[in-house]
Order: sequence, then C-alpha cells, then structure tokens
Amino acid sequence: MKEYPIPMRTYLDCIPCFFKQALEAARLAGADPRTQRQVLDDVARALPKFSLEATPPEMGRTIHQLVKKNTGLSDPYLAIKEKSNQLALSVYPKLIPKLNQSDNRLLTAVELAITGNIIDYGVKNSMNVDTELEKILSNEKKIIKNEDHRFFQFTRFKEALAHAKTVLYLADNAGETVFDRILIEEMKRMNPAQEIIYVVKEKPIINDALIKDAVDSGIDETARIFSSGSDAPGTILSLCSDAFLKIYYQADLVISKGQGNFEGLSGTNRSVFFLFLAKCPVIANDAGCQVGDVILLAHPENNGEK
Amino acid sequence: MKEYPIPMRTYLDCIPCFFKQALEAARLAGADPRTQRQVLDDVARALPKFSLEATPPEMGRTIHQLVKKNTGLSDPYLAIKEKSNQLALSVYPKLIPKLNQSDNRLLTAVELAITGNIIDYGVKNSMNVDTELEKILSNEKKIIKNEDHRFFQFTRFKEALAHAKTVLYLADNAGETVFDRILIEEMKRMNPAQEIIYVVKEKPIINDALIKDAVDSGIDETARIFSSGSDAPGTILSLCSDAFLKIYYQADLVISKGQGNFEGLSGTNRSVFFLFLAKCPVIANDAGCQVGDVILLAHPENNGEK
Repeated sequence: MKEYPIPMRTYLDCIPCFFKQALEAARLAGADPRTQRQVLDDVARALPKFSLEATPPEMGRTIHQLVKKNTGLSDPYLAIKEKSNQLALSVYPKLIPKLNQSDNRLLTAVELAITGNIIDYGVKNSMNVDTELEKILSNEKKIIKNEDHRFFQFTRFKEALAHAKTVLYLADNAGETVFDRILIEEMKRMNPAQEIIYVVKEKPIINDALIKDAVDSGIDETARIFSSGSDAPGTILSLCSDAFLKIYYQADLVISKGQGNFEGLSGTNRSVFFLFLAKCPVIANDAGCQVGDVILLAHPENNGEK
Repeated sequence: MKEYPIPMRTYLDCIPCFFKQALEAARLAGADPRTQRQVLDDVARALPKFSLEATPPEMGRTIHQLVKKNTGLSDPYLAIKEKSNQLALSVYPKLIPKLNQSDNRLLTAVELAITGNIIDYGVKNSMNVDTELEKILSNEKKIIKNEDHRFFQFTRFKEALAHAKTVLYLADNAGETVFDRILIEEMKRMNPAQEIIYVVKEKPIINDALIKDAVDSGIDETARIFSSGSDAPGTILSLCSDAFLKIYYQADLVISKGQGNFEGLSGTNRSVFFLFLAKCPVIANDAGCQVGDVILLAHPENNGEK
C-alpha cells in the first residue's frame, strides 16, 4: 500500500473505461447510435488535453458534460436514480431486523451502508439486490473477526465516532442513500447530540445523490442535508463551495462514501474514513485491496482521527 | 442470427476495446508510460475519422501502426509470437495421441485447430494451456453429438472438404499455427492429392502468424505457405494482393481461422468455413453465439459450398 496522502491520479487503465462509461451514459440517456458515436468522438477529442495528474472524477465530470451536451438532457440518470431510491426503500424494512438482531449494531450499520453501494449495479443490470446483499453480508463474520484489518479499521472508526460532535457524511449514489440512512440513524441513536451533515452533489452527475434523493430516502429526519457545491462525481475540493470547505475542515469526523469520493480525497490533508465497496480493479490496486472488498479505510493511514 | 452476407462492421462497443488493445500493445512493446499515453492520445485523434462501416481489423491495423510509430518497433509482438510457437510445439506431442485415440479424427483435428486459438491468451496471462485445452476439449462430447449444430456445421465441412482439390487455409495467430498443422496433416492424410495453401500476413501485425511462424510450426512440410499481401489483423480483401485474391476466389474450399478473419470476411460473396473460438462478446453477439463457443460456421448460411 502506498504512503498517504497521495491523491489517486488517473491511471492509463482508466482511459478505456472512460469510453465505456461514456457509451453507457449516452445509452442510458436514450441517445440514438449517431449521438452515442458523437459522444465517444467528443471524449476522444478531450482526451489528449486531459492531465493524468487529475483524478478520475474530473475526467468523469468532463465525460458526463459531453453526454449532456450531445443528448440535451440535464439529468440523464434521473429515472435510474428514482428507481434506485425506490428499490432501496423497498429493501429498507428487511434491513432493520438485521440491525436489531445484530450483537454489534454499529458494525452491521457500517456494513449495510457500504454494501448499499451495489444498488446502482442492481438497477443497471436487473440484478437481484436481495440476493447480492445477502451474498456480501454473508462475509460479515469474516469482517467481524477482523475489526482491525488493514482495510476494515472498524475499531478506529468507532472510537473516532464516539468523540465526534460534528460528522460530515459525504454521500455517493442515489439509492445507496437509504443504506446511509441506516448508519446515520444508528449514529444518532448512539449519540442524539451529534450533529450529522449529509453532503450531496450540487447538480446532476451520473447517479450521484442530490438533495431530492437524500430527502426521498428520509435522511432529512436525522441529518442536515448540504450541497458540496460541485457537480463532479466525487469530492474534488478545488471544485467545492467555500461553505462546504469550511465544514469539511471543521468537522470532527468525515465519512466518505464510495469510490468517487475516495478518488477525489485520497490525498487530502485531513483525516477521513473512506467507506466503499471496491468495484474497480484500478482503485483496488491503488488502495492495495481486492475487487469486491468491503473497505473501511482510516486516512491518513497512521492516524484515523483529525 | 442476421442474414449473410453482411460484413461485421465495427460496433460502438468496440471503441473502448480499441483503447484497451492499444494500451496492451504499447505495454507489450515495452513502451514507457509517457509513450503509452502518446499511443492512446493518437488513437483518440484517429477515432473521429474512423468509419463504423469499416470492420474492426481495419481500426486494429491503424491502432497497431500507431503503436509501431510511437515505440519505433516494427514487430512489438515478436517475443510473444516466438514464445507462442514454442509453447504450442511443446504441447503438440501430447495432441497427437489424442488424435490417434479419436474415433472421429477429422472432428478432433478441427476442434484442436479451433481451440489452439487460446495459445495467445496463455502466453499473455501465464495461463496453464494444458489445463485450458483440456477444459475446452472436455466439451468435445457435446460437440460430437451436435455435428450439425447451427454453430458447428461439421457435416457440411466434411463433405466440402471431401470434394475440394484446393484448400485455402487462412491462418490466425502464431502458436495457433501448430494446432492448424494438426488439421492440415489430417487433411493431407485423408487426401494426399489435395493442395493446401496456408495464408499468413505479409508484415507483422499484433501476434498474427507470418511466414516464419508457419515454417517454425512445421507447416511447410504439408502445405504451401503464401502471404495475403496485407498487414491487417484479419483478411480485408481490399487490402490483399492480387495474387492472393486470385487464389481466394479460385480455391475449392476456404478455411478461415480466428475472429479477425471472420470480422473481415463475414460479408464475402464466396463460401467460407469460419473456424474460431468466440472470445469477444461483440463478435459472439454478431454471430449469434455465446462467448467461449467453439465455432465452425458455414458461410453463406444456406450454402456451405462454393
């Protein structure tokens, strides 16, 4: 594993994937084949100007701007997001008993929050989310036995959480928001005085959660919903609003969900707990873990607290 | 399955893969990361000018020309090809008993020739070729029971072969050539008077077989080795020499090995037997089969003979 803080830059292996994502996005936006081709050509024209020192969400932002430009749709993933929220809300009642039966509620809530990241796959690939969730959560025991595993630093997280008066929680995708709600509700149950700020994107970008998704997921009942001020599919501090940055640096604890936020913040100079499902081989390789791993990473490596 | 003859054009899904192939080729050529990036940028610049009405091997040719231009290497896959030949030659003695024990020698020879297509994977991914071959060939019985399966039209092939005085055999990759040798030797054993012309590429392109590979594989003892006159990674008739075209149209039977030749010739106006392992989802979808299938396709669909 590399030394932190080094931001995750774009790898050459990300480039074929940019085209794959662009094609997928154009199709999801209902573009005809001619428009799909136009999107790919535009990405090709943008590529030589793109610095690999930038992080993948920056190129992701460019790609999805090109999709929007060519399709004329401001929010191509709107239907996907709504479907994700509905799907996750339909799963929610089944998750609560799981939490209530757990002898380590916080751990279960953390795992559920991380695994909620598969919702977007489910919606796109008509996957059976129940089955997939069950499959991932069946590894639970392995994780419990390794609460201080290098890639699942739960004890540090638990301690940091116990001392935090303010928690900044960076959301990832719509739908996953419902799973975040479970963790947030558990945090609030443990410490009713804790202030939790739930951060969503300012404008539509891929299937990232917006204010509406957070509200639809019921998060507004427990946390304050806030915008990052940015439309990058990951937290790129230079693109965030001053208001966000102020809270980001002042919060006692930052929980960062998903790969995009990890990519954007892996080089940040403050402590962050990264919670994500390692879905991409390049990210897994960068973090030093395996694809499919349920990750809880204390950053910087030698000090999980601020 | 679509109506033939319609050439397999380039699908939008091929585009991300072009970048993947370019990166892989640049790395195999030993390019440093800066040069790898330069190759990808050059492919990006070439993309908007590329017609999707062209077949994938045409873009493949462009990509590998860009790799050669940027790396200064005329044959980046030379080591891979030599390793493939050696690997296949080391497997060859184990394949002969398989043939001798078979109660349908021609069928076994055909299957071996097709499955030899995995050699390039083996070399690239340090795969155990013995094990992989065994895995594929263990499906043998299934194939034998379906000799007239839509995607394995063995009976038509056998009949066409029995009447053919001249056979044009279009090679695919180095290493695979050794597996072709098994089929060619079996054809010659069945009909010593049959003239077999084994066609390789004119100049280095990816790991496609050249004259040297055919000779190193021992094919010159049984067949006449001939060049297509082209350096596309698949038979694109418009790029082939007149000498090749004359033989191509006059031969009683054409055996076309591999995906690249299928992509180039799927719209041809003469009869061809396509033998390939379906390795790519786009090609599998185009042909109407599944990834991993061992394919023997009589073209045109309604008439496997000339």
